[in-house]
Amino acid sequence: MRNGIKEIAKAVGVSQTTVSRALNNEPYVRKDLRRKILETAEIMNYEPNYLAKSLLKNKTNIIGVAVSDIATSFFSTILKCIERRAAERGYNILFCNVDDDLEKEKRGFSIFRQMRVDGIILTHERVDLQIIEQLKAMSNIPMVACSCHFEEPRFISVNINDTAAAYDAVAYLHSIGHRKIAYLGSRLDEYTVGTLRHNGVQKAFSELGLPELDTYIDLASLGIEDGYRMGQRMLAVRRTRLPTAIFAGSDDVAVGLMNCLMDNGYRIPEDFSIIGFDNSIISRNVRPMLTTVQQPIDKIGTDAIDALIDLIEQKGLPVREIVLPHEIVPRGSCKPWG
Amino acid sequence: MRNGIKEIAKAVGVSQTTVSRALNNEPYVRKDLRRKILETAEIMNYEPNYLAKSLLKNKTNIIGVAVSDIATSFFSTILKCIERRAAERGYNILFCNVDDDLEKEKRGFSIFRQMRVDGIILTHERVDLQIIEQLKAMSNIPMVACSCHFEEPRFISVNINDTAAAYDAVAYLHSIGHRKIAYLGSRLDEYTVGTLRHNGVQKAFSELGLPELDTYIDLASLGIEDGYRMGQRMLAVRRTRLPTAIFAGSDDVAVGLMNCLMDNGYRIPEDFSIIGFDNSIISRNVRPMLTTVQQPIDKIGTDAIDALIDLIEQKGLPVREIVLPHEIVPRGSCKPWG
Repeated sequence: MRNGIKEIAKAVGVSQTTVSRALNNEPYVRKDLRRKILETAEIMNYEPNYLAKSLLKNKTNIIGVAVSDIATSFFSTILKCIERRAAERGYNILFCNVDDDLEKEKRGFSIFRQMRVDGIILTHERVDLQIIEQLKAMSNIPMVACSCHFEEPRFISVNINDTAAAYDAVAYLHSIGHRKIAYLGSRLDEYTVGTLRHNGVQKAFSELGLPELDTYIDLASLGIEDGYRMGQRMLAVRRTRLPTAIFAGSDDVAVGLMNCLMDNGYRIPEDFSIIGFDNSIISRNVRPMLTTVQQPIDKIGTDAIDALIDLIEQKGLPVREIVLPHEIVPRGSCKPWG
Repeated sequence: MRNGIKEIAKAVGVSQTTVSRALNNEPYVRKDLRRKILETAEIMNYEPNYLAKSLLKNKTNIIGVAVSDIATSFFSTILKCIERRAAERGYNILFCNVDDDLEKEKRGFSIFRQMRVDGIILTHERVDLQIIEQLKAMSNIPMVACSCHFEEPRFISVNINDTAAAYDAVAYLHSIGHRKIAYLGSRLDEYTVGTLRHNGVQKAFSELGLPELDTYIDLASLGIEDGYRMGQRMLAVRRTRLPTAIFAGSDDVAVGLMNCLMDNGYRIPEDFSIIGFDNSIISRNVRPMLTTVQQPIDKIGTDAIDALIDLIEQKGLPVREIVLPHEIVPRGSCKPWG
């Protein structure tokens, strides 16, 4: 059986109010009595009734996190960082994998609301009007957007400058001599960062003076299989006019693309230079190692959860957008051209 | 403001009891009245007070899942399968990343208990007496062990036959001509499967008649970096007596090992044949593609969560251990020797 406050009060010979005060670290309990109550509670295997407490305090210490696909490098890394920091600060993670399913995403947010989560972390959400309406209706729940951009100004967000980062990736390939450059990136309708990165790429193509015939753009989802498929499509469509360098919208896309090119007899970086995006774990664990644009994933996750918990505990300043620096990480998958 | 049962009762002009019956799909409410109540609830944006309901019913529809490291292929894949199936059956996942930290693991289980989770999925837990004692003390919470072996007979478990699978991996290398075989596997003290796989390897070495001087065993954790380090150690220790084939305890270890060998100028599979374990996503996404022992990860996750929910809902038969089949998946990282 579970021992509660009643049983402890009886055992110690004090009132239930006194026991409750001692257990909740409230004032008006003598030091020695407090100690005795805590010891008795431990001996009696006392467990606080968390639900009753949550109901009373209107606080659950649960944070809802929805990610698009936990089986990708980016999301499993960011979830790990979020969970670690949340645990350090006494919060638990209710996890929903959106599975690229709009209905599931909507249900996920509805469950977060029903569960009375203290706050929600939004990661890489789709640009979907229904979702945005749903989020607006949940105005009583603190939210922080992490690695995604919402117009809705009430969200604190933690991001890199996605437009500049995409620009820099293309400019890097240009700086080492490439003039025929492809971009295999994320669909504009899928993630909020897709449009920003696409803008950055187009700005670079134009400012660097690349003729339209020498550029190639294909957009899809950002998984490894998507990278493989976009690679196959590029080889088929551009057989006579292949690029010499490719900017991939994620490290997973870059890995899929490298595999596709190697399976077709090409060598990396001799035949194609490839730059990825994220600097996730996989980028260091393929050969050649992937040149990539580093997002500080750890810091994005940690800053987002810190901002959210500050918001929940009303310690936070009304920061609107935290923009973290990105950086090109040169490794073995790129080489100078010409 | 939030509309509750009281507001709906007032709007429809019936008693709160009737509203409650209709919302909870209980009998004694006329069909047309039930429909009217449900419609009104929807229009009024009714949200059930989940905490109050949970407290009343002693049921939270939350399942606790602790994994060692979500950033590894095996665990992110299995968590994805578990979450998907749980969502289909109306349960939510409270997620704890153990982070290879015993204290964090103990705290995780304690939080699951305080949160009154309906059940717990154990994955790949350490063999630690304190943890096992803690789990035994939580005898009121249904648990299913998935991909780990506990002596404690009250747990339903979903596994492959780890001893036979490890045996078969070595036997496969032997069947294609290899006689100098190494095993880079998991520490015996870390995961419950470590000992079983080690037993299988030793049984194979002995029954296949491999001289002790021609075998090599090193044990560590099962991440990519661990595989890299074990590879470096093997090259240093066995410089004059290298194996021709290596069985890696996980696909991540195999990938780290391949990278280490390639970084040292060796070719796979020309110089070394490598077989991994798990058939996780990464095994298909490296070049050469990894020959591996397939664990049916999807089915392990799905069967485990199904068994757990059946147990929670008391529909389950008292199945003790579900053993799923494993299988060798030949790909490009092994070639016949001699």
